[in-house]
Formats: sequence, structure tokens, C-alpha cells
Amino acid sequence: MLTFALIGAGRIGNVHAANVAGHPGARLGVVVDPVPGAAERLAEPFGARSSTDISAAFADDIDAVIVGSPTPFHVDHILAAVSAGKAVLVEKPVDLDLARVDECIATVGADASRVMVGFNRRFDPGVNELITRAKNGDVGPVRQLTIISRDPAAPPLSYVAQSGGIFRDMAIHDLDLARAVLGDFVEVEALGQRSDPALEEFGDFDGAVTTLRTADGAIATIINSRFCATGYDQRLEAFGALGSLETANHRETSVVFNSQAGSTSRQYQNFFLTRYAAAYRAELDHFIASIEAGTAPQPNLHDGRAALLLADAATESATSGVRVALNDNTVGAGARA
Amino acid sequence: MLTFALIGAGRIGNVHAANVAGHPGARLGVVVDPVPGAAERLAEPFGARSSTDISAAFADDIDAVIVGSPTPFHVDHILAAVSAGKAVLVEKPVDLDLARVDECIATVGADASRVMVGFNRRFDPGVNELITRAKNGDVGPVRQLTIISRDPAAPPLSYVAQSGGIFRDMAIHDLDLARAVLGDFVEVEALGQRSDPALEEFGDFDGAVTTLRTADGAIATIINSRFCATGYDQRLEAFGALGSLETANHRETSVVFNSQAGSTSRQYQNFFLTRYAAAYRAELDHFIASIEAGTAPQPNLHDGRAALLLADAATESATSGVRVALNDNTVGAGARA
Amino acid sequence: MLTFALIGAGRIGNVHAANVAGHPGARLGVVVDPVPGAAERLAEPFGARSSTDISAAFADDIDAVIVGSPTPFHVDHILAAVSAGKAVLVEKPVDLDLARVDECIATVGADASRVMVGFNRRFDPGVNELITRAKNGDVGPVRQLTIISRDPAAPPLSYVAQSGGIFRDMAIHDLDLARAVLGDFVEVEALGQRSDPALEEFGDFDGAVTTLRTADGAIATIINSRFCATGYDQRLEAFGALGSLETANHRETSVVFNSQAGSTSRQYQNFFLTRYAAAYRAELDHFIASIEAGTAPQPNLHDGRAALLLADAATESATSGVRVALNDNTVGAGARA
Amino acid sequence: MLTFALIGAGRIGNVHAANVAGHPGARLGVVVDPVPGAAERLAEPFGARSSTDISAAFADDIDAVIVGSPTPFHVDHILAAVSAGKAVLVEKPVDLDLARVDECIATVGADASRVMVGFNRRFDPGVNELITRAKNGDVGPVRQLTIISRDPAAPPLSYVAQSGGIFRDMAIHDLDLARAVLGDFVEVEALGQRSDPALEEFGDFDGAVTTLRTADGAIATIINSRFCATGYDQRLEAFGALGSLETANHRETSVVFNSQAGSTSRQYQNFFLTRYAAAYRAELDHFIASIEAGTAPQPNLHDGRAALLLADAATESATSGVRVALNDNTVGAGARA
Repeated sequence: MLTFALIGAGRIGNVHAANVAGHPGARLGVVVDPVPGAAERLAEPFGARSSTDISAAFADDIDAVIVGSPTPFHVDHILAAVSAGKAVLVEKPVDLDLARVDECIATVGADASRVMVGFNRRFDPGVNELITRAKNGDVGPVRQLTIISRDPAAPPLSYVAQSGGIFRDMAIHDLDLARAVLGDFVEVEALGQRSDPALEEFGDFDGAVTTLRTADGAIATIINSRFCATGYDQRLEAFGALGSLETANHRETSVVFNSQAGSTSRQYQNFFLTRYAAAYRAELDHFIASIEAGTAPQPNLHDGRAALLLADAATESATSGVRVALNDNTVGAGARA
Repeated sequence: MLTFALIGAGRIGNVHAANVAGHPGARLGVVVDPVPGAAERLAEPFGARSSTDISAAFADDIDAVIVGSPTPFHVDHILAAVSAGKAVLVEKPVDLDLARVDECIATVGADASRVMVGFNRRFDPGVNELITRAKNGDVGPVRQLTIISRDPAAPPLSYVAQSGGIFRDMAIHDLDLARAVLGDFVEVEALGQRSDPALEEFGDFDGAVTTLRTADGAIATIINSRFCATGYDQRLEAFGALGSLETANHRETSVVFNSQAGSTSRQYQNFFLTRYAAAYRAELDHFIASIEAGTAPQPNLHDGRAALLLADAATESATSGVRVALNDNTVGAGARA
Repeated sequence: MLTFALIGAGRIGNVHAANVAGHPGARLGVVVDPVPGAAERLAEPFGARSSTDISAAFADDIDAVIVGSPTPFHVDHILAAVSAGKAVLVEKPVDLDLARVDECIATVGADASRVMVGFNRRFDPGVNELITRAKNGDVGPVRQLTIISRDPAAPPLSYVAQSGGIFRDMAIHDLDLARAVLGDFVEVEALGQRSDPALEEFGDFDGAVTTLRTADGAIATIINSRFCATGYDQRLEAFGALGSLETANHRETSVVFNSQAGSTSRQYQNFFLTRYAAAYRAELDHFIASIEAGTAPQPNLHDGRAALLLADAATESATSGVRVALNDNTVGAGARA
Repeated sequence: MLTFALIGAGRIGNVHAANVAGHPGARLGVVVDPVPGAAERLAEPFGARSSTDISAAFADDIDAVIVGSPTPFHVDHILAAVSAGKAVLVEKPVDLDLARVDECIATVGADASRVMVGFNRRFDPGVNELITRAKNGDVGPVRQLTIISRDPAAPPLSYVAQSGGIFRDMAIHDLDLARAVLGDFVEVEALGQRSDPALEEFGDFDGAVTTLRTADGAIATIINSRFCATGYDQRLEAFGALGSLETANHRETSVVFNSQAGSTSRQYQNFFLTRYAAAYRAELDHFIASIEAGTAPQPNLHDGRAALLLADAATESATSGVRVALNDNTVGAGARA
């Protein structure tokens, strides 16, 4: 039985609090949030303590800390938790600055084996099955990986301004999944699209097509959009000589209405917390099981760094218009072409 | 190479004419229709002769006759063709009167092996695969067969008046398919529905649910409707201990439109000649191959009789409100409970 | 905030305990089960009291009781809870004996408005949408309702012996759904199938096709099987003049594997607690919201009685081989034809 | 009524011969093929003349010529036919050499309005619907067009050697479809994949990902493979702010087999002549209707040239590793970046 502290009582904090409370192997010890009342409101129905003081998250009875604070605080909270001897589950991204991630990894050192990065989509039952079967060779070596990933609606410009851009904020999930299936890439190229001219001010895009190549010649293609009228469009397809594996979108219900106008299914699930509800539960499961067993949970800080490196390279390519070579995308800074 | 005569230049005659003309093993010799000009218009583009005189269908150079005349003439035309030594492909039903079918079978005698009844749906590639695999044991012995069969729109009342009713006119296809999968039945029960009150005058229905039981306890359920807003709704499912086999509706195209309203596929194909175009071609293939090989094409006059017997029993059940027992549904008249 | 007692720490009790514990408007007060240790093991992780003594369920701080005890105890527990002033959510069926249900209804009297019967499937998001839209007239008046409902595997014979038979134990869910869509029926007819000869001893079946007719001529067809190789097969289709509404099976994941053998989707979800997990949560939601608002939750004891009446009639029909007329299926005992 | 000459009695010639013979507005006048006996075997069942002499294709009674000869002869046969005053339907590609296509266009001059290039896929009912609805604005301006196009199996190396490479031989269809939806492109980039090392000798690939950008910033992504275990994988998706339109693969039949192993659909149709049978018929329809009406059929020689220009640019990009700019891809030779 692990006792958890939760840092951050926002939208994602609510998901983690309920999952911890409903998990047979976990107890919610404390919720911490600097906003007056926020932690208390979240903690109370689950019988947990609450505090506005971050140090409450590192109390003696706490075994593990979920870092759900705003991105700029992630590294500080990871380091404080690790230094207090706690296991850590940190929301993605680790940080928007690769140098700061490198610093974090260096400081954490061997304790990195008790730090997990919350790339939740890997734990979606369908995505997880696709990754597992692809790596198991069901389609032969994967030659073409196609990821379509579209959000229901663009975030406000105020969010965009500090998001790190479409590649670091949104595509980073897909870059992580591409790595989960194909491993490391040697080359990245991205085309950006701008439907909303207001994005020009931030040098950001609301659409993108990214291609990545491995040393073996496998190609991943990622198609992103910040908006999608039908909902949250999330599909993967891994293709090889023996066949292909694909996941489908989840719809609001399975109901189909057949009429003179044809047959109409419901929209794709419209909200990431609904679409990936099972993924968040499975992610927590894996974290708890790993920590209890003394094994290192995956994905870890190195995976967080590698995805950020790819997002940086994609940003550079979309901006400069050239392919970016990645000489070493898992250990050191990538040298660019 | 078989040379065909086609009796009847109506809607179904047009289908047969084009299929014969496009078949590498067939030639369209003559088209016969009593309506002045009808046969000529159909025959001319295919380079075939035409006539308003039925005897032209039995000319010396004719090997096989397709009987596409109105139902009341079927038996006469079968008998004339057989008597002239021709092979025969007759549209369903053989006749609406069981006694007349029995008489036809008796008169035809051993030549029945050269007479095929056009239950076209058996030859639909999907239906044919389902029947073949079901009989091959892919799902184990079939225990539950479910057939949903709905027409796009009800025929005019003038047609209803002489159609023989929903069971003999429409459900007869489904009763034939039920026999093709499960063999003979020992019990039939039907519930009729009447959405259009004008049908009361004819004692007819525009909806029906028919259940049939075999001696082994397998059950077929047939759900019929004379109308269906989405088009021509045609589905089969054969279920057994090892699994199930099902066919799906065919749509106008495979295009799906995804939008804020959900995902919309096109209507089911709306017209039986479109939906079963491939079936009519495969039916002709089987007829030609059988006659050329000297083997007996299937389904034959006995199958036509058996389906009519089931339709009669279903009509009786829907009218009387009781189950109808079938002591012998392939050789003699069924004794009723 | 409602405080719950849970009677019964079995399989279904576990589901209810977790749902109550994770519900923002509910607290799990006590778990009661006569098996030594069972209640304690279930209650402890949720911080609830436990007892082997039934009276603990009716303590002063308890607002509502979930009756998850074995069926023969349902009525006793309902009556005791109601008499203690508690709201009640009772698992289906209320009882296997219609007379006992009538007695229960009579004794409960006006308090029936605070007793809900757990026909969970009505609360499945897809099923609920189908019922709502069908009643809203989306397809016009429903003329043909088709329910396919198959369990993954037959229960042990020891269970069958006391189950009340396939209609009272299994089809009762489908009979309830048929009522939810079409209202009351005037006629029931059922065919039973027996794949396992050992069922003969109990006069029970492992397959059935039931047809029900309303006074308006709408027909419901229910196809049941105790086994299904592909998993838990659960489909509804409501058809009317304007179109149809259908639900689809839920699969283990959405992954499809395409290969030389074709395209293979995963099995249907195999376990009712998985397939209907969302339904159990929504059922609890509705119960809590109704009790808090002082409105009567649905379905109620009368619905429980009506479904049992249909199950009795179906059992009689399958045994006797005749249609059963239902003169009054909501108030008194149905007169049979 | 148009009388056709068919040049080339090969695989595709067989398709055209049957389609012309079965078309109510067309007559097959003559089949020409230099291989002794080939034209005769194809012509005879359709009652057409045959010849090994090309001049027979330009006889006085011939209105239109279908050029189905090997690619190196296309331009010669187009020019001879046009010079004889015939309308022309020529198989794709016009030629593998852009200069020769330019020469052809220059020589044909104003008669180009009676020359159609057989990009058959545009006429597939689903593809045609997608193009029409996309251009009609159903999804708003198309921002992301995704084309997955995989052949069932790689051709023999002897074919590869003279094919012009994967882009000119295979992707050219997809490049044409991308133009049909999005119009002209300003930039092309392609990544090539080589699973079979024997292709290195020819500088060719058996997989490719091509991205194309329009002046407005729309992006087309084309994913190609010479092999696909599941069959002929052919999908398009056009995405815009209002939604998306997608086509699905066609399967051998609609039968699904449900079992303990999940639910298995049949393979994708495995052969282009089967998959695109309806497209070839619709292509001929359009050609006949246009010529009869005196309007210019589409796609024309300029479309053939534009697709080849894109294929050339993709080949160059895949070989050189840089993006290729297209300054003018419809009128003159494209200047490269």
C-alpha cells in the first residue's frame, strides 16, 4: 500500500486524486496546491489531508508524489521529492528546456529508476496493445508508422504563448509513441500549418506533418491538428511486411442511427480526460506495481528527454524548412545537420 | 457456349440480357415479349433476334431458356421449354399455388435436373460464403440463424393484390436462405404487422417476424419489413457453439463524412438489382457451368416448392395465430398441427 | 451526501462498494455479510465499518441500502430497509416468485417510490441513448425491436438449478429493456433450445427466441444464448418507419490486426462487470440523484414485477408450446390464453 | 453510339473490351495487337474485327481509340489516332519522359480536348464522391489530405527495371488524386524505403512517404508500399475545419467470422482490376458522354503531365534528400530549388 501526495489540484489533479482513492493498493495522503481552498476541496471527499505548503507533500508518511503542478515547476518538484526519498510520477513534459531536463537527470542520478514520466497514451489499452504486438513482431519489423492526432479545439492564445509550441506541447505525445514503437530516429522533418494567423506572433502552428526516419529506414508519419470538428481524433497504424495493426477512435457511445440520410455514429470522445480515462488508471497501476516491486517504471526521465529532443528538432525543421539530423537522441544533445 | 432465349423484356429481363451478352460462355439468341417493341428494344443493342411469339424461345438453335415472364406464366413456360428439350432458369417463385408447383414437378419428371429456380440471393458472394462456411462447420452446428430483410419501400397496392402476400412474395427469399443453411424445418410460426391499414383488404402485412424450428432444435428467425428508410436492409447471422458468421449491408459507396454531427456513412444500396448485381451474374455462371457439365443446377424445382410450402405455412400461422407443424416439407403437402 | 450500507460482499458487492467509495455524493458507511471476514475485507480499504449482523445495515447514520444478497433474501432485506426508513437499491430480480413480489409491493406501499431495482443495462450509455432516442421518436413509432443477448459461457449446473431458468435469470434483462422501449406487451411466445442435455433435468434451456407483441402491433424479438464463443454478445436494434437505432458490442480494445488472413478485431468484452462497468456507475448516479431530489428512481418494484411476469409467461410458452396472452402485465397476475 | 478501336489485347485491354461491349452507347469495332492471335482471341466473343496491324485502329468507321499498348508506344499511338481524327482514351502514364509528354501536347494542340488520360481511380465511386464533396466545401478548405496506397505484392524486378520507379509507376495515381483534391503544389518532398536490397541496382524503392504543400499551406501526405499482406490497401482522407471525408478499403465479401479469436473480416480486394472494376466502367462512361457531347473529358494530357512532373520531383527528392520546389507545375517545366 503506497501513500501518495498529490501536487496540483487542477484538472489533471482531480483525475489522479480519484484514481488513487479508488485504487486498492494506494491511499491519498495529502493534496497540495498554493491556491487557497483548492487542495482542501479536492482532498476532503477522499478523506485526505490538504495544504497550501509544498513541504506537506514530502511528509514522512508519504511514499510517492504525483507532480501535477504547472510545467515550469516540474523539475523543482521532482528534485525536492527525490531528495526526500519519494518515488515520483510527473506529468509530461518534464520541462520545455532540454538543458533543464539534462540538469534534472544529472541531479536525480540513480534515483531516476523511481521517477516515471506520465506519457499517459502509452497506457491506453489499445495503444498499449498495438505497441506490445508491434514490438512482438506481429507485423514483422514495422516499416511505416502512421499517427493521426487531432485535438477537438485549439487552446486559447494565452495558453499557446507559454506552451512551447505545437510540437513540444501536443505532438510530444505522438513523438513519444513513435519512439515506443520504433525506437530512436536519425532524422526529423516537419511541415507546419497555420490556419489561425494570430499564431504567427508566437511562431507557432495549428497543424503539422512530421516525418521521422530510423537508422533502419523505418518511417513514422505524424499528422497533427489543433482542431477537429468530430472530436478527439487519435489513431495509430503500424505497418510491416506481415500486416498492420491499427487503433480506432473511441466514440461517445456505440449507437448508430440509420435513416434516409445514411448511418450516423456518434462523435469521437471529445475530451482527453474521457478518452484516456482508462490510460490514466493503467498508468497509475504500472507506477504502483513498479515501485512496490522495486523495478523501474517506464517511461522514465530519459524518455521524457528524448521526446523533447524530437519536439525541438521538429520545431527547428518546421521553422527552417530543412531536415534535422539526430546523431544521438537518447544520451546527449542532438547534433543538427 | 450456350445460346439463350429470354422470355420477358421487363426489369429483370434487362438484367439477364446484359449478363448473358457479357458472359464469355453465353450468347443471347432471342428475346421474347408479347408487348410490341419491348423485346426488340432489349435485343437490338446485343445483336439478338426478337419476337412477340413465345414459340421463338424454343427455336432449334436455343440451348437454354430464361423464364422472366409474370409469375402466373412460369409453369407454362417451364413446361414448354422442357418439352422442347431446353434447360431452364426460372425466376422465383415457380408459382403461388403449391398444387400447380406439384403438377409442374410431376410433369417435368427427370428433366427437373435441368431446371434451376432463380433464388438469386444464394449467389450473392457474401451470402454464398456464409452458407458455405456454415455448412462447412465453421461455427459448429448452426443453432440460431437470424435474417433481417427489409425492402426500401412498399410496392403499390395493385402489386400487393396479386403478390401472394408478404410471405410468398418477399419472405420467400429468406425462407429459401434459411433452408440453404439449416435444411428442413418441422415447425413454423409467424407474426404479421400491418402499418398500412389498406393491406387489411388483402389480408396482407407489411412487417413480419417468422420463427422456424428444425427437428434438431435449431431456430431461424426472419424479420421482414416492406419499408426501410435507410435502403435495402439485408443481413444474415449464423450462430453456433464455435462462433458466428454474419454479412453486412452494402452501402452506396464506402465514404464516411466525419463532422460535429458524428460520422455518417452512405445509405444501404437502395435497389435490389444494384444490391444483387453480382448475385445475378454468379447465378448465371452456376447455371451455365452446370448445364455444360451435365450436372443439376441448384436450387431446383424442389427447393422452389419447399420455400413456397414454408411461405404458405407462415401465411397460415400469421393469419390463424398458431404454430404450424410441417411433417414433410420437401416431398408432399405439409400436414398442419 | 448519502451514506450507504451494502448488504452482500460478493462479486456484485465489490462493484457497488468501489462505485460508492468513488462517488462524490456518496459515502460507504458499512458492509454487511454473514460470511466471516468477507464484509471486513471489502470494507477496510474504503474506510467503512463491517459486520456479519444484518441489523448493522439499518443503523441510524445510514441513508440508503444496496441489497446485493442472494435472490431469496431480497424481499426480506427490502422490507427491513424500508421499514427502517432507508432508500433501497436492490439487485434484480426482486424475487423469482411473482406472488412474493406482489406481497413485497403491497407491504412497501407508498415507500415504493424510494425503492429502485437494479436493471443495470438500462443505464449503459449506449442502451440508454437508444431507449431515449427511440422514445423521443427518432425512428418514428418503434415497430420491430431486436435484441441479441448472449452470455460468454453457461453457468454451472448447480447455479442453473436455483436460477429460475433462462427466462427469469438471463432474459429478464432483455424483457426489461423491451418494456423500456415498447411499454407493455399483450402476447408472449418463446421457443427454448437445449444444447446441453443435462438441462433437461431442470426443464431449463440454454438458448431461446422470444417474441412479444404490443397492443399496437409492435414486435420485440429476443434471441438468447447461454454461451457465445466471441464473448458477451449484447445488441439492440429499434426499427421504425423513419429509420433504426442500433448499439454495437464492446470489444476488449479497438485494435485491428490486418494480415493475409483478413482483418481481426478483438473479442467482445467477456465479463458482464467489465461490459457494464459504466452502467453500474450511471445506475448509482441515478439512484443518488433521485433520492437526493426526492423523486422516484426508475426502474422500480413495478418494473421488476413486470419483467418477472414476462419471464414467467415466456417460461410457460417455451414449456407448453403455445402463445401466452397477457391481459394485464403491470397490475395483476396475467391471465393466460 | 461510338465505335471503338482497342490497341493492346493484354490484361487491361481485356477490361476495356468487355466494358465497351457491355456499354449501351458503345460498340467494339476492332482490337489490334501485334502478338499473333492475341487480338483475335479477345475480339471474337464480342463480334469485333481483329488485326495485328496498327492502321486497323484508325479505320474510317472508328470514332474513338483506347490506347492500351505498352507505355513507350503511348505517344505514337495518341498522335496517330489524333491525326486520324479519332478521340483517344490513353492508359496512364502518357510517357515516362516529361519532354516527350510536352512534345505530345504541343503536337496534339487543340485536339487535346478529345484526349483523355485513364487515371481510373478518380472514377471509383467512393473516390469520386470524396473529390466532389471535398471540392464542394463539405469539410471546408481541405487542410490535410492523407492517402495510403499499397499494392498487394511487389512486381518482378524485370518490370521494375523499366517502370520509371515507384513514383512514376505507382505513386503517380496518388499524385493525380492529390491534384484532383488540392490543385497545384509548390513543394514536394519524398522519403524512399528499400526493403528489397535488389532495388538498389535500379535506384528504386518499395516504400515511400511523400509530402506536398500548396501555396495556401494545405498538405498532402502519401504513404506508399509495393507490398501489403492484407491486399490492395487504398484509402483517402480529406480533412478541414468542418470535418473530414474518408474512403475505406473494399473487402472480398462483407462476411465477418466471430469466434474465440475475435472477429475476422475478409482481406482487402487483392487485384486492381477487381478493386477498380466500377472505376473502369465509370471512366469509360465519362469518356463516351464527353465525346458525344463535344465537351473535353477529364483528366486530360495536362493532368497527365502534371502528375508526371510531381513524380519526377518526388523521385528527385527521395534521391537527393532535399525538398523540391515547383514553380510552375502545370504549364512549363518545374524549376527546382
